[in-house]
Amino acid sequence: MGKVYLIGAGPGAPDLLTLRAAEILKRAELVFHDALVHPQTLALATRARTILVGKRSGRHSTAQSFINKRLVDSARKHGVVVRLKGGDPMLFGRAQEEIDALRGAGIDFEIVPGVTAATAASAELGVSLTRRGLARHVAFVTPRAGRGERENDWAASVLAADTAVIYMGAGLAERISAELIGRGKGRATPLVVVESATLPERRILRGTLADLPALALQAGGGPAVVLLGEVLRASPANRKAASIAKIPVYLKQA
Amino acid sequence: MGKVYLIGAGPGAPDLLTLRAAEILKRAELVFHDALVHPQTLALATRARTILVGKRSGRHSTAQSFINKRLVDSARKHGVVVRLKGGDPMLFGRAQEEIDALRGAGIDFEIVPGVTAATAASAELGVSLTRRGLARHVAFVTPRAGRGERENDWAASVLAADTAVIYMGAGLAERISAELIGRGKGRATPLVVVESATLPERRILRGTLADLPALALQAGGGPAVVLLGEVLRASPANRKAASIAKIPVYLKQA
Repeated sequence: MGKVYLIGAGPGAPDLLTLRAAEILKRAELVFHDALVHPQTLALATRARTILVGKRSGRHSTAQSFINKRLVDSARKHGVVVRLKGGDPMLFGRAQEEIDALRGAGIDFEIVPGVTAATAASAELGVSLTRRGLARHVAFVTPRAGRGERENDWAASVLAADTAVIYMGAGLAERISAELIGRGKGRATPLVVVESATLPERRILRGTLADLPALALQAGGGPAVVLLGEVLRASPANRKAASIAKIPVYLKQA
Repeated sequence: MGKVYLIGAGPGAPDLLTLRAAEILKRAELVFHDALVHPQTLALATRARTILVGKRSGRHSTAQSFINKRLVDSARKHGVVVRLKGGDPMLFGRAQEEIDALRGAGIDFEIVPGVTAATAASAELGVSLTRRGLARHVAFVTPRAGRGERENDWAASVLAADTAVIYMGAGLAERISAELIGRGKGRATPLVVVESATLPERRILRGTLADLPALALQAGGGPAVVLLGEVLRASPANRKAASIAKIPVYLKQA
C-alpha cells in the first residue's frame, strides 16, 4: 500500500514551493495536479507520470469524485502518490473531500502546507495584512458557493474584519462591490487586485471598493485575489511598491 | 548599498521553508532572526553572521525601533541582509514597521512569503479550514493589542467567520472563551489548540470553546494557534487525525 501526499504548490512561482514538497516530488511515482501548478514545479517530479486533473472556474474539469477514486486506486498500486494543488490545500483547496475519501478507504496520507495567495500578494505589495494600531484581524473569504450549498455570508466576514482577502472572486466583481457597499462598507475603502501573484505576468490594479467592477475589466484571465482594507491606503511609500517588488526566479536547481 | 530580504521561515519544521528562502539564506551575509526560527534553518546561512533579535510574548526582546535601525545600517554595509521571521512576515509578523523604515531610508528590499501556522496546523489535523457546504470564510485574528492601540474587535471577526484561527492567544484563554461565549458563540463550538505545529514536540488539545481555559492549562510554553469552528467537529475520522499526522524531517541537504 502506498501513501498519498496532498501538497500545496504555493502561489505561482516555482521557488515558492517548500523544501519538503520538493523532496517528496523527487520520489513521486504519480502526480495528480491542478492547472495552476507551474511546469517547473512538475519538472521536479523526475520519476513520476504527471496527470492534469485540475479545475478552473468555468473551464472543463475532472469531477471531484473521479479524482478521489483515482487517488485511492493509485495508492493501492504505487508507493508515492502526490496530489498537487495551487496555493495551500487547506484554504479554498477542496482538500477535505479527498482527505475523507482517503480516510474512508484506509489509505495513509500526509498533507504538506503551502504559501497561500493572500500572503504572497501582500508580500509583493509590500503591505502587511496586519499592522499594529490598524489591523489585527484578517478575513479570507470566497463569494463562490457550490450548487445546493447552505448560505455563505462571506460579506459578514469582510465587514467584521480589518483586512479582507477575497479568493476566486473573478467574474463576481459587480456582486462583491454592490453587496459590500449595500451593507455599509465604505465606497472609498482601499482595494487592490493582484492577478497572477509571483509570476512574470503579474498585474496589480489599485483603486477603491467602488472601483472593483472597472478594475476587474482591466484584469486578464489569471488567478486573482482582491485585498481590501485600510492597510492598503496608498501612501507615497505604498505607491512605490509596484516598482520595488521584483519577480525573481531563483529556482536554478530545477 | 545592499538589499534586505524579509523572509518567512514557516511554521516550525525547517523543511517547510521555501526554496527561494533557502537560496537567499545561502547568500546572506547577516541574518537577524526571531527566537522561533529553527536552528537547521539558520544553519542554511553558511556565510552569515546570525543575530537573535526576536521577540516572544513576555520575554526579553529587542526594541522594534532598534531592529529597524540595525536593518538600515546593515544594508549600507553589506550586500545581502536577511530578516527571518517565524511563519509568514505579513500575518502577525510586524513586518510593516520594518518595511516602512527601509522605504524611508531608501533601502532596496524584498519580501519572501512563508507558510503560516494556521494552514500548517490544519494540515497536521487533516481538517481543511474551508469546506464546501460548511465553511467558506476564515478569520485570522489576534486578541493582543499594543499599548495605546485603537480598539481591536477581534471577537467580531471570529463571530462572523465560519472558521477562526487565533494567533498569539497564549495567556488569554479565559478572556477569549468568556468574550466569545458572552457575545453568543456556542459553548460547544469545536475547538483545537495546536502547540508547536510541525515540530517533534507538537501537542494537539481538543475540546470546545468552553474548554479553552482548561486546555490552555495543559499546554506547554510553545507557540500555539487556536482553531475553532464546525469543520473541527470530531468525527471518528477526525479523531484519527492525531495518529495519522507524522512529523517527518526531510531536510537531508542541510
